[in-house]
Amino acid sequence: MLPTMADVQAAAVRIQPWIHRTPVMTSISLDALSGAQLWFKCENLQKAGAFKARGATNAVLQLSPEAAARGVATHSSGNHGAALALAASRRGIPSYVVMPENASEVKRRAVLNYGGKVITCAPNLASREETLAQVLQETGAVFIPPYNHPHVIAGQGTAALELLEEVPELDVVIAPVGGGGLLSGTALVVHSLRPAAQTWGAEPALANDAFLSLQNGRIMPVQSTQTIADGLRSSLGEMTFAMIQQYVPKVLTVSEEDIIRAMRLLWERMKIVVEPSGALPLAAVLTHPEEVKGRRLGLILSGGNVDLDHLPWVTK
Amino acid sequence: MLPTMADVQAAAVRIQPWIHRTPVMTSISLDALSGAQLWFKCENLQKAGAFKARGATNAVLQLSPEAAARGVATHSSGNHGAALALAASRRGIPSYVVMPENASEVKRRAVLNYGGKVITCAPNLASREETLAQVLQETGAVFIPPYNHPHVIAGQGTAALELLEEVPELDVVIAPVGGGGLLSGTALVVHSLRPAAQTWGAEPALANDAFLSLQNGRIMPVQSTQTIADGLRSSLGEMTFAMIQQYVPKVLTVSEEDIIRAMRLLWERMKIVVEPSGALPLAAVLTHPEEVKGRRLGLILSGGNVDLDHLPWVTK
Repeated sequence: MLPTMADVQAAAVRIQPWIHRTPVMTSISLDALSGAQLWFKCENLQKAGAFKARGATNAVLQLSPEAAARGVATHSSGNHGAALALAASRRGIPSYVVMPENASEVKRRAVLNYGGKVITCAPNLASREETLAQVLQETGAVFIPPYNHPHVIAGQGTAALELLEEVPELDVVIAPVGGGGLLSGTALVVHSLRPAAQTWGAEPALANDAFLSLQNGRIMPVQSTQTIADGLRSSLGEMTFAMIQQYVPKVLTVSEEDIIRAMRLLWERMKIVVEPSGALPLAAVLTHPEEVKGRRLGLILSGGNVDLDHLPWVTK
Repeated sequence: MLPTMADVQAAAVRIQPWIHRTPVMTSISLDALSGAQLWFKCENLQKAGAFKARGATNAVLQLSPEAAARGVATHSSGNHGAALALAASRRGIPSYVVMPENASEVKRRAVLNYGGKVITCAPNLASREETLAQVLQETGAVFIPPYNHPHVIAGQGTAALELLEEVPELDVVIAPVGGGGLLSGTALVVHSLRPAAQTWGAEPALANDAFLSLQNGRIMPVQSTQTIADGLRSSLGEMTFAMIQQYVPKVLTVSEEDIIRAMRLLWERMKIVVEPSGALPLAAVLTHPEEVKGRRLGLILSGGNVDLDHLPWVTK
């Protein structure tokens, strides 16, 4: 069953003691550059460095004591794994994260630091599913998927709820779209609280499956995982697609070059560390000026987990 | 005349419409690493990227209309020049910043972006003073020095005022020390509002003139400008030294390696961009654990202006 606005509101109360209420920042210089008025919801400053802490915490807190005792499991090469490990450790239960053997050391360490167990699989879908099935069978843990789950989606929606509480009169809210958990939760909230506003997705042109799915009226799996925005390499799920179809009129796509430029601008002008996936909304604004001119936009900066040794613009 | 606490309080009211009230952030992981409780006052998120906006704005706003009309001038190779240009542009008056010809392009552009005029001098004291004198004579502008001025010091103290309003029960507040404007203003505020707390300076071992000045009871000029902390290469002024002698019992020094490590930790764990000078307080905490264990510390992250093309830890 798809999550409702009431689910998001309940999630906000439930997770409040466990997550940060992240700041909403503005930048005169980025306003000038974009020709619009921008409010940045800084989920890069969220616990574990991404909005994923919201959905994972909401899902873990809704498990019955009996189910929780057996622990939680997921597959992730990124932020959801760390967020789930953190949420599980706060509840005092075990967590198991299936990660491909080529996952970055930084992401592996994040899971381990939060007390999660990492189970390595081969970097393909078959191995991932097989390994996860085995973990679930051996441990009895509950599978918490990264996005296609009503508790996860409701949790992700709480970021937009906070944003609209602080800046009610927005014309558009833009969120990056990978699997669609953040975008669908955001769109549900914006549609419910401010029907006059729209929610748009921002997506790498190299992984434009959400754009194509909307166009074709069915889920189009992502064809390439080459984008630098490593949080946005997933295809939509059935729930997230249904919600995006209903509430999201537009997905803007951007080039790799524009993602890197936007990321760097956020670091330079706003003095915050944003990962490539988190820079998508600003990249969309800067490369589609005709869509945003003179409007009031909320941009969700989804995360800040970057390998500081390998920055895309550093050449010397 | 030295500034008083009343001057700081008046400054806070005067500059409030023109500056950011910057957030105070915390980090569980840096608390664990330090063995102390840390509150970070994020002046890297201040307008123009540094606390300098406070003092420059306070000084510019106190000029009489007649004096202001002729403009303001200063010498600076860094953040004070940009802050003064910004403050002047807000008041609609001209600003002149004398910069050495080897100043970084990033810093030059910052002054120009805020509408300041840049006057280039040779990179030595004699040329700087001569060039500034000429500018003052030709324009009639008012000289606003980077730190040794009561209005500037009172303005810088407003950061600590905000910090103590939010976190009153601190044991120690640590600020970086270059010319001493931030440290002396901070110490005045902490001494006045929370006499039980101490204010400490944090200084590069390579530019330990404040440490030596306190030890010797007189201003010892800085001997080397080799530290990566480019905001901390100045010697103390008479006013800032008098106040530091009175209110600051301790200056902790740190190595270049420790500055870079602390800077990187701030980026990685807190997802914020902090310049080398701004990382000094955390570097001091991490390298002097015996001084801080179990205590409640306020750390002033003074600025976030970094050349993103040249990061000290990036080697590939």
